[in-house]
Amino acid sequence: MVPTRRATVPALEDLLFVPLPVLDHGFLRVIDYMGDDAAVVQAARVSYGRGTRKISEDEGLIRYLMRHHHSTPFEMCEIKLHVKLPIFVARQWIRHRTANVNEYSARYSIMDREFYIPAPEHLAAQASSNRQGRGVPLDGAEAASVLSLLREDSERNYAHYEQMLNEAVPDPSRRGLARELARMNLTLNTYTQWYWKVDLHNLFHFLSLRTDVHAQYEIRAYADTIMGMVKAWVPKSYNAFLDYRLNATLFSAPMMAALRRMVAGESVSQADSGLSKREWNEMMHMLNGRQSEH
Amino acid sequence: MVPTRRATVPALEDLLFVPLPVLDHGFLRVIDYMGDDAAVVQAARVSYGRGTRKISEDEGLIRYLMRHHHSTPFEMCEIKLHVKLPIFVARQWIRHRTANVNEYSARYSIMDREFYIPAPEHLAAQASSNRQGRGVPLDGAEAASVLSLLREDSERNYAHYEQMLNEAVPDPSRRGLARELARMNLTLNTYTQWYWKVDLHNLFHFLSLRTDVHAQYEIRAYADTIMGMVKAWVPKSYNAFLDYRLNATLFSAPMMAALRRMVAGESVSQADSGLSKREWNEMMHMLNGRQSEH
Amino acid sequence: MVPTRRATVPALEDLLFVPLPVLDHGFLRVIDYMGDDAAVVQAARVSYGRGTRKISEDEGLIRYLMRHHHSTPFEMCEIKLHVKLPIFVARQWIRHRTANVNEYSARYSIMDREFYIPAPEHLAAQASSNRQGRGVPLDGAEAASVLSLLREDSERNYAHYEQMLNEAVPDPSRRGLARELARMNLTLNTYTQWYWKVDLHNLFHFLSLRTDVHAQYEIRAYADTIMGMVKAWVPKSYNAFLDYRLNATLFSAPMMAALRRMVAGESVSQADSGLSKREWNEMMHMLNGRQSEH
Amino acid sequence: MVPTRRATVPALEDLLFVPLPVLDHGFLRVIDYMGDDAAVVQAARVSYGRGTRKISEDEGLIRYLMRHHHSTPFEMCEIKLHVKLPIFVARQWIRHRTANVNEYSARYSIMDREFYIPAPEHLAAQASSNRQGRGVPLDGAEAASVLSLLREDSERNYAHYEQMLNEAVPDPSRRGLARELARMNLTLNTYTQWYWKVDLHNLFHFLSLRTDVHAQYEIRAYADTIMGMVKAWVPKSYNAFLDYRLNATLFSAPMMAALRRMVAGESVSQADSGLSKREWNEMMHMLNGRQSEH
Repeated sequence: MVPTRRATVPALEDLLFVPLPVLDHGFLRVIDYMGDDAAVVQAARVSYGRGTRKISEDEGLIRYLMRHHHSTPFEMCEIKLHVKLPIFVARQWIRHRTANVNEYSARYSIMDREFYIPAPEHLAAQASSNRQGRGVPLDGAEAASVLSLLREDSERNYAHYEQMLNEAVPDPSRRGLARELARMNLTLNTYTQWYWKVDLHNLFHFLSLRTDVHAQYEIRAYADTIMGMVKAWVPKSYNAFLDYRLNATLFSAPMMAALRRMVAGESVSQADSGLSKREWNEMMHMLNGRQSEH
Repeated sequence: MVPTRRATVPALEDLLFVPLPVLDHGFLRVIDYMGDDAAVVQAARVSYGRGTRKISEDEGLIRYLMRHHHSTPFEMCEIKLHVKLPIFVARQWIRHRTANVNEYSARYSIMDREFYIPAPEHLAAQASSNRQGRGVPLDGAEAASVLSLLREDSERNYAHYEQMLNEAVPDPSRRGLARELARMNLTLNTYTQWYWKVDLHNLFHFLSLRTDVHAQYEIRAYADTIMGMVKAWVPKSYNAFLDYRLNATLFSAPMMAALRRMVAGESVSQADSGLSKREWNEMMHMLNGRQSEH
Repeated sequence: MVPTRRATVPALEDLLFVPLPVLDHGFLRVIDYMGDDAAVVQAARVSYGRGTRKISEDEGLIRYLMRHHHSTPFEMCEIKLHVKLPIFVARQWIRHRTANVNEYSARYSIMDREFYIPAPEHLAAQASSNRQGRGVPLDGAEAASVLSLLREDSERNYAHYEQMLNEAVPDPSRRGLARELARMNLTLNTYTQWYWKVDLHNLFHFLSLRTDVHAQYEIRAYADTIMGMVKAWVPKSYNAFLDYRLNATLFSAPMMAALRRMVAGESVSQADSGLSKREWNEMMHMLNGRQSEH
Repeated sequence: MVPTRRATVPALEDLLFVPLPVLDHGFLRVIDYMGDDAAVVQAARVSYGRGTRKISEDEGLIRYLMRHHHSTPFEMCEIKLHVKLPIFVARQWIRHRTANVNEYSARYSIMDREFYIPAPEHLAAQASSNRQGRGVPLDGAEAASVLSLLREDSERNYAHYEQMLNEAVPDPSRRGLARELARMNLTLNTYTQWYWKVDLHNLFHFLSLRTDVHAQYEIRAYADTIMGMVKAWVPKSYNAFLDYRLNATLFSAPMMAALRRMVAGESVSQADSGLSKREWNEMMHMLNGRQSEH
């Protein structure tokens, strides 16, 4: 522990450097952070200058900023995470472009012998709607067969990776294949790792997409763990994010027309709502309150 | 063919939609483009207004912009490519963040049964320097063994992928594993595809890194093919890029000190140059002219 | 007119290069574009591959993408505008970072003698709420006094700018001040111009913020004109944007709790809603339908 | 002072919150920072994993990264500055898009009565080359005349701004013009302020452009002050930046052809160099060592 004059958050200091396990071999660790709830307020006050006397409390200001999509003050906080994650999850994660990344390089270094093998309760069938996502869990026999295929193929491909490299127990009659080539034999559930640095605004965007029920379970497991970190770090911003983003509900213009009639006491059916069956169902779902997880 | 009033480049029109093969199953296709050499000039003239009478010719202005790192006029041109590429190449490519990407989704759809298997002459040993990169090619027996491992593992893992999916020839006693899960059994040489849209400035940055001799051969093969597209599209900008970026040489401050003595006729050795052995070798390499490929 | 094999939109071709007037001396001109509604669909289909049989029509797919915040297909379209605008508007506009800009340079060139002077009906008092925005229009005498101050100060400062430059009718006894210095005497209503290139997703984001009733009138005037361009360019995406973004309404988690009770037929008051007075008023406003402009 | 387990840099802690004066009324203050030289090394080691045994010392690794344009490890450090600067400088600064900004809002708040008036020695004539930049200083009489124009116009326009606002000493017969409108009467040398947060890689890019002799003196004054902050913060990265970026020299392909002949002892003239007169002069300039400022 060394002294600093910077904004410091004791609850997040406690989490610093501690790996929190995710999936079977993954983890998330906070490596560094910059700013706190007060830094959000401070940046907003630079913008509003003398004009903000009325929104005088920090929490109220943070909620106001979140509600009105004033995103730049949240960009003033930054967090850096060390993440160990399967490659197929990394491929989804990297699509969030406004972040900084340093990934373990399979050109320079040898990958670890670690693969993601789902727990049986996460082995699910394709969703019947023919779109992305999972439906019901596989039953015991099918699940067991899937798990053994995944395990055997990962292990075999890794063993052949090592054999092609010829580095661990070198056979002097062979040169060994370049690492950048041998790695192509590995499976997409192989674990990689990276440092990932992102500002709070873009982290909220990441979390709103990746904690969603439509996100793949495996990346959601990481997003859910990050939620706890953010709660420890910037509790006021976190609560505003829950109320005005994550658990907020967007009604389309056609939905609003139907909703206004309902609130006025009118009985509205799909047929006379002006909505397609699909949109009507989505709206009923919204009014029945699916989003209560966080 | 339909008429347009937009800037149009006949040489690039000829390439539109035509897949140019790269590696064993990959390709690059130009899908759309915006702007030409004149669009670079036009944007620069907006900036310089009446101040540019002296740099009156287009080609001279383009060369001036490139030489002096005036990058924004080159951002005014845009190109969209359809790319089929192995996943491990896609993982390098996606690190270029200032671009737009729509990738084939293995959550929604079933991946094709296509894998990158290197040609024997590209199967090389790890570079002896213990850093990234390749050294000498493997000899026949070792190469053959590597190729058969790569082939067999790719094919077996794909067959198990199909078996887990249970979609092609469904076994009614099984539900089939969700696509988003089954895909984790695939190897990193499996082909994916995407639409990739980028502006000319960021494309030049991509090309300067990915045509470099230190780039992995497989991504270099794509970059080299894109070079031909850019040459057809914006020949003046392309030539300026060759002269002032790709084939330009950066001397560090310590190198400049030694270089000035050399040019003044002094005989300079590594020992009295002030440079480390490594930097001295790099400088000798630069003066001997490695960069003459493009 | 030249032939092209690229996606072409006749309705936007008609607008190409035609300056549409905005404010008193400003304009917007479409200089170039890439893609159309079909390009959005095409990019989405690359992502969904064989998985999208059910969302078979283009319009339905575009609406699905917009509703579910699938933003990357909209990034596949690009537009380039030539804009003439007052500097204080340019300062708001440039905050949208994901765009390409080439602005007229007051270091290289002499600024034009053109200033934005608001029409009398746009000269409004500060909004009484002590936050940003305008309230009621100024009455005749005050408006006249403001207009003559704005006019005289702009003109005088420009005249002194020219005098310091000493370029138009040079006084041989003076050297003339450097342009990059003399420009600092100009007022913020001086017109500048730039080329601005942006993808459709980021343009929608710009439009959702800048057509809002809380946006300053002057930038809204530009945003409203761009709306017409977008409607001509990508009518299906434009309609989806209206329904699912611009005219959609976001209810916070606490609002949803109150809304669900209302829809169930319960009579809910602010006092027992769990909402602050401010949020309750916002919600009543939302249910009364403010957003019907576009 | 509070304890933290984060990377902490005592030399930068000493600078925290202390406004360093720039120009006549401007300043730069470090508000927060994340990371240090070791954070750059740490991120690089994640990438190189076990492959980096040979580049074992931190300083050597940092120099290697800078020399080979490995930019991502430098993105792992972040700094947040509070800046007070004239609007015309802010307009140049904001063109660096990869940064976070919260600026004082002239829609919400009243601007301060502070204007940049150059010191007489910085009042220079337009460079004779008809391009951007300054030439010789103005002589006493012309300088005095320019200064009094700048002062009077700034003061008068500000006085009229206050009069239109009608807020300081309100005249009850007038409503007062909205702030967002009245501000358009201000001159471009009016001071604004913002919080600016940027990563070290993008800061180096900013510094390489804005400490350049071709940058306008006023923004260079800020860049030069930031140089001192960076030196205190990450001294090893700073030195590598000096040697391999700021004071490094780029020879174009045609220059290299001539340079190689020179180093081989040949006497080369412009006429037989293959270079245009302009490029030849630039090269002579490079060999004569202009870049020795930092």
